[in-house]
Amino acid sequence: MKKILTLAALILPLAANAQLSNDDVHKYDHRDASQYRSEIVIPGFDGYQTLKCDFHIHTVFSDGSVWPTIRVLEAWQEGLDAIAMTDHLEYRPHRDVVKAGHNASYDIAKAEADKMGFILIKGAEITRSKPLGHLNAIFIKDADKLDVKDPLKAIDNALEQGGYIIWNHPGWPDNKSTLYQIHDELIKAGKISAYEAYNCMESYPLTFDWHSEYGIAPMANTDIHGSVASSYAHDGKWMRPMTLVFASERSEEAIREALDARRTVAFFQGTLVGSEEHLSKLVHASLKVRKISDSRMEVSNVSDITYSMVQGDTMYIFPAGKTAMVPVLTGELLVKNCFYGKDKNLIFSF
Amino acid sequence: MKKILTLAALILPLAANAQLSNDDVHKYDHRDASQYRSEIVIPGFDGYQTLKCDFHIHTVFSDGSVWPTIRVLEAWQEGLDAIAMTDHLEYRPHRDVVKAGHNASYDIAKAEADKMGFILIKGAEITRSKPLGHLNAIFIKDADKLDVKDPLKAIDNALEQGGYIIWNHPGWPDNKSTLYQIHDELIKAGKISAYEAYNCMESYPLTFDWHSEYGIAPMANTDIHGSVASSYAHDGKWMRPMTLVFASERSEEAIREALDARRTVAFFQGTLVGSEEHLSKLVHASLKVRKISDSRMEVSNVSDITYSMVQGDTMYIFPAGKTAMVPVLTGELLVKNCFYGKDKNLIFSF
Amino acid sequence: MKKILTLAALILPLAANAQLSNDDVHKYDHRDASQYRSEIVIPGFDGYQTLKCDFHIHTVFSDGSVWPTIRVLEAWQEGLDAIAMTDHLEYRPHRDVVKAGHNASYDIAKAEADKMGFILIKGAEITRSKPLGHLNAIFIKDADKLDVKDPLKAIDNALEQGGYIIWNHPGWPDNKSTLYQIHDELIKAGKISAYEAYNCMESYPLTFDWHSEYGIAPMANTDIHGSVASSYAHDGKWMRPMTLVFASERSEEAIREALDARRTVAFFQGTLVGSEEHLSKLVHASLKVRKISDSRMEVSNVSDITYSMVQGDTMYIFPAGKTAMVPVLTGELLVKNCFYGKDKNLIFSF
Amino acid sequence: MKKILTLAALILPLAANAQLSNDDVHKYDHRDASQYRSEIVIPGFDGYQTLKCDFHIHTVFSDGSVWPTIRVLEAWQEGLDAIAMTDHLEYRPHRDVVKAGHNASYDIAKAEADKMGFILIKGAEITRSKPLGHLNAIFIKDADKLDVKDPLKAIDNALEQGGYIIWNHPGWPDNKSTLYQIHDELIKAGKISAYEAYNCMESYPLTFDWHSEYGIAPMANTDIHGSVASSYAHDGKWMRPMTLVFASERSEEAIREALDARRTVAFFQGTLVGSEEHLSKLVHASLKVRKISDSRMEVSNVSDITYSMVQGDTMYIFPAGKTAMVPVLTGELLVKNCFYGKDKNLIFSF
Repeated sequence: MKKILTLAALILPLAANAQLSNDDVHKYDHRDASQYRSEIVIPGFDGYQTLKCDFHIHTVFSDGSVWPTIRVLEAWQEGLDAIAMTDHLEYRPHRDVVKAGHNASYDIAKAEADKMGFILIKGAEITRSKPLGHLNAIFIKDADKLDVKDPLKAIDNALEQGGYIIWNHPGWPDNKSTLYQIHDELIKAGKISAYEAYNCMESYPLTFDWHSEYGIAPMANTDIHGSVASSYAHDGKWMRPMTLVFASERSEEAIREALDARRTVAFFQGTLVGSEEHLSKLVHASLKVRKISDSRMEVSNVSDITYSMVQGDTMYIFPAGKTAMVPVLTGELLVKNCFYGKDKNLIFSF
Repeated sequence: MKKILTLAALILPLAANAQLSNDDVHKYDHRDASQYRSEIVIPGFDGYQTLKCDFHIHTVFSDGSVWPTIRVLEAWQEGLDAIAMTDHLEYRPHRDVVKAGHNASYDIAKAEADKMGFILIKGAEITRSKPLGHLNAIFIKDADKLDVKDPLKAIDNALEQGGYIIWNHPGWPDNKSTLYQIHDELIKAGKISAYEAYNCMESYPLTFDWHSEYGIAPMANTDIHGSVASSYAHDGKWMRPMTLVFASERSEEAIREALDARRTVAFFQGTLVGSEEHLSKLVHASLKVRKISDSRMEVSNVSDITYSMVQGDTMYIFPAGKTAMVPVLTGELLVKNCFYGKDKNLIFSF
Repeated sequence: MKKILTLAALILPLAANAQLSNDDVHKYDHRDASQYRSEIVIPGFDGYQTLKCDFHIHTVFSDGSVWPTIRVLEAWQEGLDAIAMTDHLEYRPHRDVVKAGHNASYDIAKAEADKMGFILIKGAEITRSKPLGHLNAIFIKDADKLDVKDPLKAIDNALEQGGYIIWNHPGWPDNKSTLYQIHDELIKAGKISAYEAYNCMESYPLTFDWHSEYGIAPMANTDIHGSVASSYAHDGKWMRPMTLVFASERSEEAIREALDARRTVAFFQGTLVGSEEHLSKLVHASLKVRKISDSRMEVSNVSDITYSMVQGDTMYIFPAGKTAMVPVLTGELLVKNCFYGKDKNLIFSF
Repeated sequence: MKKILTLAALILPLAANAQLSNDDVHKYDHRDASQYRSEIVIPGFDGYQTLKCDFHIHTVFSDGSVWPTIRVLEAWQEGLDAIAMTDHLEYRPHRDVVKAGHNASYDIAKAEADKMGFILIKGAEITRSKPLGHLNAIFIKDADKLDVKDPLKAIDNALEQGGYIIWNHPGWPDNKSTLYQIHDELIKAGKISAYEAYNCMESYPLTFDWHSEYGIAPMANTDIHGSVASSYAHDGKWMRPMTLVFASERSEEAIREALDARRTVAFFQGTLVGSEEHLSKLVHASLKVRKISDSRMEVSNVSDITYSMVQGDTMYIFPAGKTAMVPVLTGELLVKNCFYGKDKNLIFSF
C-alpha cells in the first residue's frame, strides 16, 4: 500500500542528502568543457581501428576565424583522432594584420597538440581557379616551399616532401563535380590520391564512384573557417563531416599507411560513402544479432552511426547505440545510408 | 577562398538529395518507440556481466496502474535485463473491478516476456505493518500459497518454493531505517537475503552498512505503481533505480546465483552502494587510462555512470561516456558517488 | 592576462559553494516527474487560444494497457489541455478479468482529472467492420446506452445525449481512406462532424481535403493503447499526434463550441492539416519579423512548431523557438509542412 | 480492436509520404547553424525588457583565440542582446604576429555586428596587478587613448570619452574578493560603477552585498578567451554567465541608461545576484499561478530560469518552461537560487 510520492514527501532531508553527488557533477560539467572529450564509437574490423579525421582546416593565418590552438581543442573535444592544418597558401585576407609564414599555423597548433597527445598533420591548400581548383597537400614538411607560381610545381614540391594530395570539393562552386583532364593526368601519375565526397555542408553524389573508378580515397572534411560549434548544430553528435580511416593504430604513420591503401570512408549527416568491402565490414562490425525466437531477433547497434535498411516495402531502422526488435531477417537488405557509388546502395545480409 | 555558406546557398537540389536518409530515420524513430531499446553500458569484471534489474514492481492486479505487459515493455525499452513481478498479496484496491488470483499478473506478463526474450521473475509482496513491514518474495512458484494470515508462515511458504526474501524500503514511512529484532532473527535464520538501500525516489543512508554488517545484498528497486515514464524524468538515462547484478550470464539462474552470493550494487541517481570489492572492480572496469605526458593523462569512462573523485581540495569528474584530460593522478582518491557504508566513500587509485 | 581555467583551478571551495542550487534542482527533477507538466507553446489568433487535445484514448477497460488515471496524468504532463476517454463498447479482451460497465473508465479518470483541474470529455468508440468502421462519440452522458446492436442506433443514442461523432482512422487497415456512402449520408444528416487525418502513427493524405469538401473537422488523435511514453519516442516534444482546437477559453464548453464551428487543425510529426484560413493565421501568429537592413531580416518563431518554406529553389527553415537570419523575403512562399488539402501547401507571405 | 502497430506495419509508403517535411528540417538544421539564434526567454517588468549581455570579451588582438567576428556570431547565436569588446591594452601575447592598434578588434567586429543588427559596445581592459587589478572601460570611443602608464589616468581618459568602469573578477586569483582602498576611493569618486559577481567559471560570494553596500551594479561576464562552445558545456542553455540588464528598449543607449541606474542582475549556473527589488520583480514576472482547488495550484514558469524555493522542510522546484502542481502556497518562501547579498536569499510570496 505504498503510494506514489505525494507532495508532502518532497522533504528537505533527502534533498540535502550528503551522498548524492549529482550536483557536483553538474557544476563541474558546466565549468570546464575544455577538459572533456566526447567519444565517437565506431568499431573497426580486420584488426584495424576506425579513426575519425578531418583533413581540411583553416585558421586566421589564411581566411579562417580562429587561432590554430582552437582547432586542436575543438577536434579533441569532438572525438576526432587527427586533423590536418591546411591554410591557403595564396589566399590570406588577414595578411595586413596577421603576419607570418605558411608554417606558422601548424607550428602554433603543434605545440598544443603535443600537450594533448593529439595527432596533427602538416598541410597546406594549393588554391587555383578551375579546372585545377583547390588541392590539399598533407604530410608535408615545409609549406613555404609550396608557395610557387606554377601549381603543378607546388604539387611536385609537396610530393618531394612526402606529401599526399587531395582534390578538394570537386562540386564547388558550380555543383558539376567534373573530374577534369588535369586531374585524370595527376591521378594516373600517382599524384592525386584522394578526393572529397563531402565538404563543409555539401555533398557531391556525382563523385561517389570515383574511389572505384579512379582508385582514389573518398573523404569528408569540414573545410572549417569559423568555429565548428558556430557552424554546425549541436543537437546531436554527427554534425561535422569526418573521414573514417581504418588504421592499424592511432598514429600519424598508421593514418598515412591507411590513406595510401585507400582504406577510408566519407561520413556526413549519417551517410557513408566508400567501397563495398569497407562499408560491408563496418556495418557487420556495428550490428550484433541475438535471436529471440523463430520469428524475432534483436539487433544491437554498438556504433554511433544509425543504419536504415529496406527489404521489400518494409524499412528497418537500427538507431545508434540502441537495440531494435525485428522479424528474423533473411535475404538481402538495401542499406539506405551506405553508398559504394552514385545511386548504388550497399546490399547487406545478416 | 571558399567561404562559409551564404544564405543563397540553401538551394533545394541538395535538400532533395536522394542519398540522405536522415528523414526516414527521424520518421521511423517517431513511429515505433515500442520496438527500440536503449542500452545501458556498464562493464562487468571477473568474468561476470553487469545485469540491470528491478526486483519490485506493481500492476493493476494490486495497487499499480498498468497492465502487466507494460512492465515488460518498459523494462526492455529502458535497457533492463530482468524484473520481478511483486504485486501485493494483501492490498488490492481495484479488486472490485480486477478479479483474479495472485499469479495472474505474472502469467500475463510472462507471455509477453517470452515473446521478447526478456527475463521475468515471479514474485509477490508480503505486506504487513511495521516492525515486520513489507517483504518481497521472488523466485517463487505459486503466489497464492503465500496469501496466509501469518506473515512468517508466508515467508516459509515462499522459501519452500525456492523463494528469495528482500526486506523492502526499510526507511519507509518513518525514515528510521531500523533493522528490527524480527529482521535480525530472519537474517540469522537465512531467511532474509537482501534489502533495499534505495526504493522509488527514496534513499536510506542508515542502511548502507547492512551488506557488510548483516551479509545481505543491497538493492535499488522502483516499487513502481504508475508508468515509469510518468514517474521519473526523461532528460537523462539514470532516472530509474536499478539493482546491478554481477552474473555469469544473462539468465534467471545466473541472477539467482549472483543474488545468493550477494554480488549486487544498488544504483540510483548516479550513486552506488555496495561492497568495497564490487565498487572498486566496477570503477576500475569503467575507467581506461592513457598517459599523455609526464604531467597529463586521459581517463576514458567507458560506462554510462559518471564518477566524481576528490583528492586534496581538487575534484575530478569523469562523465559517463566521455574522456577527461587530468593531471597524472597518483595516490588515493575518494570516490564521492560510491559508498561501501554510511559516510564511507570508496578509496580509489588509478 | 587572465587565462582559461587550468586544471589546478578546479578547487573544491567553489564546488561546495552554498549558493549554487543546481544540484537540488536536478535531484528534484528526478524525483517527481509526475508533478511537472511540459508546456507546448502554440499561439492563438482572433481572440482564441490554441488548445491541444486528444479525442481518442483507450484503457484496460477495453483493449488498452493502463488504468484510466494514467491517461489524465500523461496528458497533463505532456502539455495537453483536454482528452476524451473512448474505450471500445464492443471489444473488451480483458473482460474476463476487468469487470465493469462502459462508464467506469471515465468515472475513474474523472476523479483524477478533477483533482488536477484537467478537462476530461466522456466518450466511447462504436466499433464495427468496414464500411462503417469505427466512430467515436464524445461529449456523451451515458456510454452504456450506446451498447446496442445497430450501430446507427448507437449513433442516434449518442446524439440524443448531445454527442459529437468522429469518423476514426479512415485509412485503416486498408490504407484506402475512402469516404463510403454511409459516411456521406451521416455527414449530410449532420451526424458525423469530424474525422481523423492522423491516427496513432498513421497519416491519411487522401483525406486532407475532406474538411473543405465535406465540412467536417480534421483531427489528429493517438488512439493510444499502451503508455504514451512506451509508444512514442522521447527525443523531442512533438511525438504524440494532437488536435489543435481554437477555443475562446480553456473549458469543455469552449472546446465543444470550437468543434461545432470546425475550428481545428490536425498536427502530427511537425505537419499540420486544416483550412487555409486557420493555417495562415497560425503561421502568422507564430512568426515575428524584425528587419535588420535592406537585405536581411530576423524571423523569430515563438511557437513550438517548426515551419519550413520554399521560394524558388531556396528553402527556409524556421525552427521552433529559434530566430533565423534570412534575406528580406517578399512575395509568396510555399509552406512545406502545412496542408489545406492533398498536395495543397499553404501559400504564405510575410 | 485497432492494435498497436505491429512490425509488419512499418511499410514504406508511409515513409515516403510526401507531406512530411521533418527530413528537410533536419537536414537544414545541420547545415547552417550560423544562421540560427536560440532565444533566451526572461520576462521583463515595470515596462523594462530583460536584455542578456556580456561585458567582458577577448579576441586574438589580446590573449584570446578567435577573430573578433566570431564573438558577434557566438553571442547572436546564443541569444545574447549585446556584448562589449574588451581586449587587454597591456597584455597581447600574439603581438609578434597580430599587428594592430587597440581599436582594431572592435572595428572588425562592428562591421559584422552591423550586418546582423547586433549591439556591440566598444571597450578595453585596463590590466594591472593587485590591488588595482583589472578594470573594464566600456562605452569608450578610442581605446588607444587608454594605453597610458598610469592606470588612474587611463580610467580618467576613459571617463572623459563617456566610459563606464567595471571592476573585474575581484576574487581572482587569490579568491579574496577584497574591495581595496583604491576601489573604495574610485567608487566614492563615481568612477567605478559595476563589478563582476561572476567571471568565467568563478563565483565571488563575498561580493554579493556590494551592490547595496557600495551602490555598484552586479555583473556576470564570461571573460571569454577561447570559443564559448569549447569553454562551456552544451547540454543546456545556461552555461555562459550573463549580465541581465533591465532596459527600456533593445539599444546601446538604453543599456547605458540601465547600467547607470544599476538595473542589473548577475546570472550564472542558474543563480541570480542582485537587489531584492529586481530579484523579486523578476521572479514574479516569471511565475504564473492557476488555482486548481482549495488545496492545489499550478505554477507555470514562463522563463528559462529554474527557481527553487524552500518553506519549512519542503522544497519546491519550478523548472524553466514547465508547470508544477503544488499545494496552495501561502506565507513566505526562501528562494534558494536568488541572492540579494552573501547568504541572503530572496524571500518570496505568491
